[in-house]
Amino acid sequence: MERVYNFGAGPSCLPLEVLETIQKEMLMYKDSGVSILEISHRTPYYDDLNNESMSLFKKLLNLGDDYIVLFLQGGGYSQFSNIPQNFAKPTDLTLYALTGNFSNKAYIEGKKYSRAEVITSSKDTNFNYIPKITKDMVDQSAKYLHICVNNTVYGTSYHDIPETGAVPLIGDMSSIILGKDYDFKKFSMIYGGAQKNLGAAGVTFVVLKNDMLNEDLNDTLASMTNYAVHAKANSIFNTPPVFAVYVLNLMLKWADKMGGVKQLSDRAKARTKKIYDIIDNSNFYKGTAEKYDRSPMNVTFVCPNQEFNDKFVSEAKANSMIGLKGHKAAGGIRASIYNAMSDEGVERLAEFMKQFESNNK
Amino acid sequence: MERVYNFGAGPSCLPLEVLETIQKEMLMYKDSGVSILEISHRTPYYDDLNNESMSLFKKLLNLGDDYIVLFLQGGGYSQFSNIPQNFAKPTDLTLYALTGNFSNKAYIEGKKYSRAEVITSSKDTNFNYIPKITKDMVDQSAKYLHICVNNTVYGTSYHDIPETGAVPLIGDMSSIILGKDYDFKKFSMIYGGAQKNLGAAGVTFVVLKNDMLNEDLNDTLASMTNYAVHAKANSIFNTPPVFAVYVLNLMLKWADKMGGVKQLSDRAKARTKKIYDIIDNSNFYKGTAEKYDRSPMNVTFVCPNQEFNDKFVSEAKANSMIGLKGHKAAGGIRASIYNAMSDEGVERLAEFMKQFESNNK
Repeated sequence: MERVYNFGAGPSCLPLEVLETIQKEMLMYKDSGVSILEISHRTPYYDDLNNESMSLFKKLLNLGDDYIVLFLQGGGYSQFSNIPQNFAKPTDLTLYALTGNFSNKAYIEGKKYSRAEVITSSKDTNFNYIPKITKDMVDQSAKYLHICVNNTVYGTSYHDIPETGAVPLIGDMSSIILGKDYDFKKFSMIYGGAQKNLGAAGVTFVVLKNDMLNEDLNDTLASMTNYAVHAKANSIFNTPPVFAVYVLNLMLKWADKMGGVKQLSDRAKARTKKIYDIIDNSNFYKGTAEKYDRSPMNVTFVCPNQEFNDKFVSEAKANSMIGLKGHKAAGGIRASIYNAMSDEGVERLAEFMKQFESNNK
Repeated sequence: MERVYNFGAGPSCLPLEVLETIQKEMLMYKDSGVSILEISHRTPYYDDLNNESMSLFKKLLNLGDDYIVLFLQGGGYSQFSNIPQNFAKPTDLTLYALTGNFSNKAYIEGKKYSRAEVITSSKDTNFNYIPKITKDMVDQSAKYLHICVNNTVYGTSYHDIPETGAVPLIGDMSSIILGKDYDFKKFSMIYGGAQKNLGAAGVTFVVLKNDMLNEDLNDTLASMTNYAVHAKANSIFNTPPVFAVYVLNLMLKWADKMGGVKQLSDRAKARTKKIYDIIDNSNFYKGTAEKYDRSPMNVTFVCPNQEFNDKFVSEAKANSMIGLKGHKAAGGIRASIYNAMSDEGVERLAEFMKQFESNNK
């Protein structure tokens, strides 16, 4: 069995060199005498790993001391409910833009703990575009506006970050972090699971502007839900997911070596353009997202009918490319081209698409 | 640098053969074509891993279809607040036995979401024993009684499981799971972090009696907090910590190969007895826990003064034994002898203790 090209939406591919480092170090982490899996979080080894990851992450995002990084657990989904519990009272207004599967889940959880309202939605066209949000749409009494910056299922992403006035902007960046060079300072909070561009499932990054922290909640809110508790403990409040933070650390270093966010952003745009160009120059494939809102990470498209979609996925698999079946909510094909996908993998997919079209049209 | 004997309280040592399996499989999980770190949780590979782990865990605990296993995130700490939110209303009575650091943390979180009361406590003697709980002490209107079954910091554990009548018994078993052959059927819920006897930090096991699940909470409680939501999704409600579940799976198989819980329980008792005997036959060392309540996992003791404690820890380290410094709340020395510690490691510690005493008394 050979290693294959993994176009899955996440957990997704890792750079081979990162996997090889993990393999090499598995029995012994640095000079600790033990594996990274055995190391205590109350050692200088973990302190260094934790602090180095936090500062490198902020460097890559071009954020300063007015932001704090937390490495938590529970995935984006835990943040969906943590967010209203940290930033709003049950009677407070909170705003949600619905642009797909996960933004809707965030809204549903938001409603449990705040007066959540939908500011805009693209549900009417099965989330195939990002509706424009202008400042006059943002009720200034709201505690925050939540957006899902990249919609993995539908292959769309924000290219213009909404202006929200005094209302804090919160972005779920699970599937686009380090894949596009946003001005991260426009956000009061970004968060996401690591299992796409930052390594393995099991750690969730939360980047918060300091002024979002609220220690008044300490006596009433669950400690594990309370960002102020984690911030005060430098993200080692309880046993952290040590191994997942270690993999995240390796991925941050890899991203830095690749040139940082601007380079990775340009690279992602160029690589997905190759696939989008094939779609746009074809009468066989049809892109499902509006062109302007296309994601630089997840390319979604359909063949002329379901039979071709299925055949595409199974023939791709026979050609060592897996994970190409679209999400059930969107159908068709989805090629997730995260940072760790090799250029060779992108080339292989492009060639396969041309060949498949020519064989079947 | 050689691998050392890791007596740390957790994250703690893993069997070398398990680490070697992880190392060997790192680039390719079974015939998937990808690493376990890259595998999607929506594949038959993960389904099999998840289901196999659940059924093997129940087999080892001798539990049947009236129990369900969940693999969650956030450690024991997340369960401290999940428990009252799942099983009690804010006005409901809940009971806590205080026997150490973590039982107290559970109580503090419990108070945030229920009318939590302390049924008994050994705080007056710095938690050096397990106070007896009799059925007449258990208010039958309570929603549960919570105990911490093994107190890592103080080296005590329950040897008699309290009779609670109709009140569900909930046990934090983070540091004793698979280390002692309790009658697990006496519990309505057991839970714990995996990073002691079940592998790596990053996954939390929750074993629940089915009748504890409450779907009425679905509209109001955060989905990630709601055990009924995770149960319905067979613990794949959102992206699980795939790698940590994989390591847990390997640890369950290792425990099964070692003969199961009864064998491991006898082994743990015999191994810690070696150390307890040295303490009891010495005028130099002094055990800090009451004899009857001594833990079969964490052996706590002191040398005649602090200088000797420090010298013990540093000389042990020079002899390839790490993690022996006691928790700051208890002081002295703590040797955590979890299932993965080799017999050779226990022997080495025993010999070192005798030598150290003879050199210093």
